Amino acid sequence: MSILHVAPVLGVLGLLVAWMIYVIIKRQPAGNSVMQEIAEAIYRGAMVFLRREYLVLTGFVVVVGALLAYALGRWTLLAFISGALCSMLAGFFGMKAATRANVRTTEAARSSGQDKALMIAFGGGSVMGLCVASLGLLGLGLFFLLLHEVFGGDLSRAVILNGFAMGASSIALFARVGGGIYTKAADVGADLVGKVEAGIPEDDPRNPAVTADLVGDNVGDTAGMGADIFESYVGSIVATVAIAATGNLGGAERAPAMLLPLLIASAGLVASVLGIGSLKFLTRLGPAAALRIMPLLSAALMLGATWWVVGSMGVSIGGRPTMGVFWAVASGGIAGILIGLLTEYFTSAEPMLKIARASETGAATNIIIGTAVGMQSTALPVLAICAAIYAAHEAAGLYGIGISAVGMLATVGVTMSVDGYGPIADNAGGISEMSNLGPETRRITDGLDSLGNTTAAIGKGFAIGSAALTALALFSAYTSSIGLGEDGLDVTRPEVVIGVLIGGMLPFLLASMAISAVGRAARAMVEEVRRQFREIKGLLEGTAKPDSERCIDISAQAALREMVLPGMTALFAPVIVGWGLGPEALGGMLVGATVCGVLMALFMANSGGAWDNAKKYIEKGNLGGKGSDAHKAAVVGDTVGDPFKDTAGPAMNILIKLMSVVSLVIAPLLR
Amino acid sequence: MSILHVAPVLGVLGLLVAWMIYVIIKRQPAGNSVMQEIAEAIYRGAMVFLRREYLVLTGFVVVVGALLAYALGRWTLLAFISGALCSMLAGFFGMKAATRANVRTTEAARSSGQDKALMIAFGGGSVMGLCVASLGLLGLGLFFLLLHEVFGGDLSRAVILNGFAMGASSIALFARVGGGIYTKAADVGADLVGKVEAGIPEDDPRNPAVTADLVGDNVGDTAGMGADIFESYVGSIVATVAIAATGNLGGAERAPAMLLPLLIASAGLVASVLGIGSLKFLTRLGPAAALRIMPLLSAALMLGATWWVVGSMGVSIGGRPTMGVFWAVASGGIAGILIGLLTEYFTSAEPMLKIARASETGAATNIIIGTAVGMQSTALPVLAICAAIYAAHEAAGLYGIGISAVGMLATVGVTMSVDGYGPIADNAGGISEMSNLGPETRRITDGLDSLGNTTAAIGKGFAIGSAALTALALFSAYTSSIGLGEDGLDVTRPEVVIGVLIGGMLPFLLASMAISAVGRAARAMVEEVRRQFREIKGLLEGTAKPDSERCIDISAQAALREMVLPGMTALFAPVIVGWGLGPEALGGMLVGATVCGVLMALFMANSGGAWDNAKKYIEKGNLGGKGSDAHKAAVVGDTVGDPFKDTAGPAMNILIKLMSVVSLVIAPLLR
Repeated sequence: MSILHVAPVLGVLGLLVAWMIYVIIKRQPAGNSVMQEIAEAIYRGAMVFLRREYLVLTGFVVVVGALLAYALGRWTLLAFISGALCSMLAGFFGMKAATRANVRTTEAARSSGQDKALMIAFGGGSVMGLCVASLGLLGLGLFFLLLHEVFGGDLSRAVILNGFAMGASSIALFARVGGGIYTKAADVGADLVGKVEAGIPEDDPRNPAVTADLVGDNVGDTAGMGADIFESYVGSIVATVAIAATGNLGGAERAPAMLLPLLIASAGLVASVLGIGSLKFLTRLGPAAALRIMPLLSAALMLGATWWVVGSMGVSIGGRPTMGVFWAVASGGIAGILIGLLTEYFTSAEPMLKIARASETGAATNIIIGTAVGMQSTALPVLAICAAIYAAHEAAGLYGIGISAVGMLATVGVTMSVDGYGPIADNAGGISEMSNLGPETRRITDGLDSLGNTTAAIGKGFAIGSAALTALALFSAYTSSIGLGEDGLDVTRPEVVIGVLIGGMLPFLLASMAISAVGRAARAMVEEVRRQFREIKGLLEGTAKPDSERCIDISAQAALREMVLPGMTALFAPVIVGWGLGPEALGGMLVGATVCGVLMALFMANSGGAWDNAKKYIEKGNLGGKGSDAHKAAVVGDTVGDPFKDTAGPAMNILIKLMSVVSLVIAPLLR
Repeated sequence: MSILHVAPVLGVLGLLVAWMIYVIIKRQPAGNSVMQEIAEAIYRGAMVFLRREYLVLTGFVVVVGALLAYALGRWTLLAFISGALCSMLAGFFGMKAATRANVRTTEAARSSGQDKALMIAFGGGSVMGLCVASLGLLGLGLFFLLLHEVFGGDLSRAVILNGFAMGASSIALFARVGGGIYTKAADVGADLVGKVEAGIPEDDPRNPAVTADLVGDNVGDTAGMGADIFESYVGSIVATVAIAATGNLGGAERAPAMLLPLLIASAGLVASVLGIGSLKFLTRLGPAAALRIMPLLSAALMLGATWWVVGSMGVSIGGRPTMGVFWAVASGGIAGILIGLLTEYFTSAEPMLKIARASETGAATNIIIGTAVGMQSTALPVLAICAAIYAAHEAAGLYGIGISAVGMLATVGVTMSVDGYGPIADNAGGISEMSNLGPETRRITDGLDSLGNTTAAIGKGFAIGSAALTALALFSAYTSSIGLGEDGLDVTRPEVVIGVLIGGMLPFLLASMAISAVGRAARAMVEEVRRQFREIKGLLEGTAKPDSERCIDISAQAALREMVLPGMTALFAPVIVGWGLGPEALGGMLVGATVCGVLMALFMANSGGAWDNAKKYIEKGNLGGKGSDAHKAAVVGDTVGDPFKDTAGPAMNILIKLMSVVSLVIAPLLR
C-alpha cells in the first residue's frame, strides 16, 4: 500500500463509520404513532423530491457530460460523472439519516432527556458530515490512483480532476437553488397565511404547508448545504492540485505539492472522526459548548497532523522553506473559524438587538436597520479573508492560497456535522409541536432548535468564507492554467474591466432570480393554503386534516422549474464570456463575480439571520412579545430574510465556485 | 483671444445666462401671504442648512488643503480650494433659484396654468444646470490658462488639475450624504407619524416635519445632486486630461488631446443653452415630451460640434484616425441616454407593477419583489456601460474611455436642468397642499410633480452611469499616472485581489452607514413629531401651529453629524490602502469599489424608485387604492426605498469618484 492509497482507504473507512452511526440511529425508538406518521410524511416528501430532482439532474449531467466528452475526452467525462454522483450520494445519505434522526430526537427528548436527544440529532448530522468528507476523499483519491496507474503520473493529465469538481459544482448549484426555493416557498407561504392571516402558531398541524416546511428544512439545509460544502471541499483540493500542476513551481516540487492537499484532507477526516467521537465527553460542558469546542478540537488535531506531514514530506514550494505550507493551512483554518464567529455576532448580539428595537417603529424601520446591519456585517469577514490570502501568499505563494482553502475545509467532516445538526433539531421541534407533546419535551426541543440556529448561522458564515477562498483558489488555478505568463491579468485592459463588470453583475442577477422564484412559489403556496382553509370544513377547528401533499407538490414543482434558469446562467456565463471576449475577460469576470458574490452572500445571510433572531428575541417576551406591533414588524423582516438567507445568499456561494470551476475546465480550450 | 480662452469666456457667459433666468424668475408673482410665508420658511431652512454645511466644509477644506499643500505644493492647494469653491457656489446659486422658483411655480399654476408653471419650474432648475456647467468650464478653463501662462504649457504640471477635481469631489461627498440624510430623515419621519400613525395626508400643514421635508428636497435633490453631477463633469474632464498628459500617446499628440475635453464641454454648454432656450417651442408637444426631447436635441448639437472640432483640429490619438475620438464621445452620450431610459422602465413599467401587485400579499412580499426588481435592474445598465467602454476603447484607446465620459457629461447644462426641475415641482406641489389651494391648482402641480418623478428617475440613472464612466476614466488616469508600464495591474497578484475585496466591501459599508444614519435621524424626528402632536394643543384640529423649526433643526444637525464618518472613510481609505499595501493594491481597490459601487447604486436607486412609484400607482386607485391593505404594504416599501434611493444610492456615485480622484491626486507620492 502506497501513500496514494491513504485517501481512498480513509474514504471507505469514513463511510463505514457513517453507516454505523446511521444503523445506531435507526435502532432508536421512533415515538408514538402520530409522531411516526408525521415523520413518515416528511421522509416521503423529502425522498420524493430528491428522486425528482436527481432525475432532472441526470438528464442535465448526460447533456453536459456529452459536451465535455466531445471537447475534453472521456476521462474528463468520467470524472465529471463521478463528481456529480458523489455529490448526489452525499445528499442522499445525509438526507436519509436526517429524516430518520428527526423523530428519534423528538422521542429521545420525550423519554430520555436533553443529552440523548442532542446525541441523536448530532449523530444524524454527522452522517452528512462524514459522507461529504469521505465521498470527496474516496472519489478524488481514486482519480489520483488512476492518474498514477493509467497515465504513469503524467502531470498534464491532472486536468481530469477538474471534471470531478465540475460534477460536484453542477449538482451543488441545482441542489442549493432548488432546495432553497423549496424550503422558502413552504416557509414563507406557511407563515404568511398561518401566522399572519389565520393567527395560528408556527408548525401548527392545521396548517397544510407545515409538512412541506419541515420537508424543506431537509431539502434545503441538509441536502443543499451538504452539496454546497462538498463542492467547496472538492473545489479547494482540485484548485490546489491544479496550481501545483500548472503553476510556477520547480518541476521536482510538483508531485508532493499535488499530493499534499489530499493528505491534509485525509488528516482532517481522521481529526473529524475523533472530534465527533468526543461528543460524549464534551456534552458534560453543555450542548452549546460541546458543538462549539468540537470543530476547534478537530482543527487543532488536523493542524498538528499537517505540521508532521509537511515536515516529514520535506516539500518545498517555490524554493521557500517547507513550513510555509503549514502556515498557509493554518491561516485558512483560522479565517474559517473567525468568519463563523463574526457571523454569530452580527446575527445574535448587539446588531440583532438594534433590529429588534427598530421593530417598535414599524416594519419599515425593521427592514431599514436590518439591511444596514447586513451591509455592515460584510466588512470584517472580508478583512479576515484578505488577511488569510495575504498570510497564505506570504507563506507559500500562489500555492499557499489554494492550500489555505484546503486548511479551512479539511475538517469538513465535523463542521458539516455541526451544520447538519441544525435542521434535524428544527424538524424535531416541529414534530413535537405537530404531535402535541408536552411542554417539557417542547422545552428540550426548543433549546436544541435554538442552538441549531446558532450553529446554522456559524455554518452559513463558514460556507461563505470557504466558498470565497475556494473560488479564489480556483481563480488562481484558472489563471495559472491559461498561462498568462509574466503579464498577468491586466485589469487596466478594457476587456478585463468589462469582464469584472459583467462578473459583478451576475450575483445581483442570480439573487434576483432566486428571490423572485421564492416570491412566485410562495404566492402559489399562499393561495393553496387559503383555499384549503376556505374549502376543507373543520380544518381550522382541528376536526379535519389538511391536504399536505398538495403543498409538498407545489414546493417541489416550483423548485424544479425555477432552478433551471439561474443554473443555466451560472453554467453558461463563463462559456459565453470566455469564447466571446477571451480568456482574460473571463478571468476578470471571475474576479468581479467572486467579490460581489461574497459580499452579497454575507449581506443576505447576515441580514436574514439577524431578522430571524430579532423576531425570536421579541417572541421571548421582549419589547412587547408575541402579538405586539413590534412583533408584527419583526415577522415582516423575518419573512423578507427567508429568501435572503436560505435561497439567494447560499446561491452566491455556488455561483462563484461553479463559474470558477467551469472556467478551469474550459481553460485548455481557450488557450 | 486664443483657443484657451474659449472655455472660461463661455463659462462666464453661461453664468450670465443663469443670472438672467434667475432675475426673470424672481420677478414673477409669489402668491398670497400664506404661500409666501411657507416659501420663506423653506428658503430660510435651506439657506441656514447650506450655511452650516459650508461652515463645516470650510474647516474640512482648510485641514485637507494644508495636507495637500504640504505634500503636493501650493498650486494643487489653489486648485483644490477652487474646485471646492466652484462646487459650493453651484450648490448655492442652484438652491437659491430653486427656493425662489418653487412658490412662483405654484402661483403660476394657480393664476396662469400649466405651461407657465412648467416654464418657471424648469427655469429654476436650469439655473442649477447652467451654474454646474459654467462654473466647471470657468474653473478648469482658468487653470488651463494658468498652466499655459505660468508654466509655459509644462505638461508635468497638469497634475494640478487633479486638485480641482478633488475639491469638487470632497464637497460632493458631504453635500450628497449630508443632503441625503437631511431629506430622508424629514421624509421618513414625516411619513411614519403623519401618514401611518396620525392618518393625515402627505404635506399636511399640521405635520411639523413637512417643512423640513420640503427643505430637504432642495438640500438633497438640488444641492446634493448638483454637487454630484458637478463632480462627474469636472472628474471626466480632468481624467481625460490626465490620461492625455501621462498616457501612452506620442508627445506631439498630447497638447490637442489635453485641450479636446474642454472644447467638447464648451460645445456642450452652448448646446445646452440652445436646448434650454428651445423649451418655449417644445412645450407645444406637451411637458413630458419637451423635457424628454430637449436633452436629446442638445446631445445631437454637441455631437455635431464635436464632429467639426475633432475633424478641424486634426487630433490623432495613438496613431489612430482622428474620427475615433468622435465615436468615443458618441458612445458615452448614447450610453447615458440608454441608462436613463432603462431606469425609467424599471421604476415605472412592468417591474414596478409587479411590486404593486405583490403589495396585495403584504409588506413582506412587497419588499421581497422590490429587492428582486432592484437587483435585476442592474444587468442592462451595466451592459450598456460595458458596451460604451468597449466601443470607446476600440475607437480611441484608453483616451477614448476618458473622452466618452466627457461625451456623456458635456451637455450637463441641460440634463442637470431637467433634473433640477423635479424638486422644484415637488416643492410647488407641497406648497399648494400646505396653503390649501384649489383642486385645479393641485391638479397642475400634481401633474408637474409626477413628471418630476420621471425626470428624477432618469436623472438618477444618468448620475450613476456618468459616475461609473467617470470613475473608470479616473481609474485609467490613475493607473496611467503611477506608471505601471507593460505589466499592467495584475489581478492575479494577492495584494491586488486584496485591494479588490476591500474596495468591493466599502460601498456596502458606506451604504450601511448612510442607511443607519437615516434610521437614527428619522427616529429622532418621529419622537419630536409625536411629542408635538401630544403636547401642542389644537395642532391636529388645525387651530395651533406646529413648531417646524425644531424639526428643521433635527434634520440639519443629524445631517451635519452623520456625514462626517462616511465622508472620512471614503477620503482616507485610498490613502491608507495606497500607503499600507501599495499603489497596485490601491488600483485593485478602485476596481472593486467601482464595480460594487455602481451595482449597489443601481440596485438601491431602482428598488427605491420602483417602490415609490408602486405606492403612487396604488394611490391612484388601483389594487384597492389609498387606505387598502395593499396601500399600507406599499407605504412600507416606499419608506424603505427612501434612504435607498436618496441617501445610500447616490452616496455610491460620490464614493467611487472621490476614491478615484484621491488616488489620482496622491499617485505622484506613491510612485
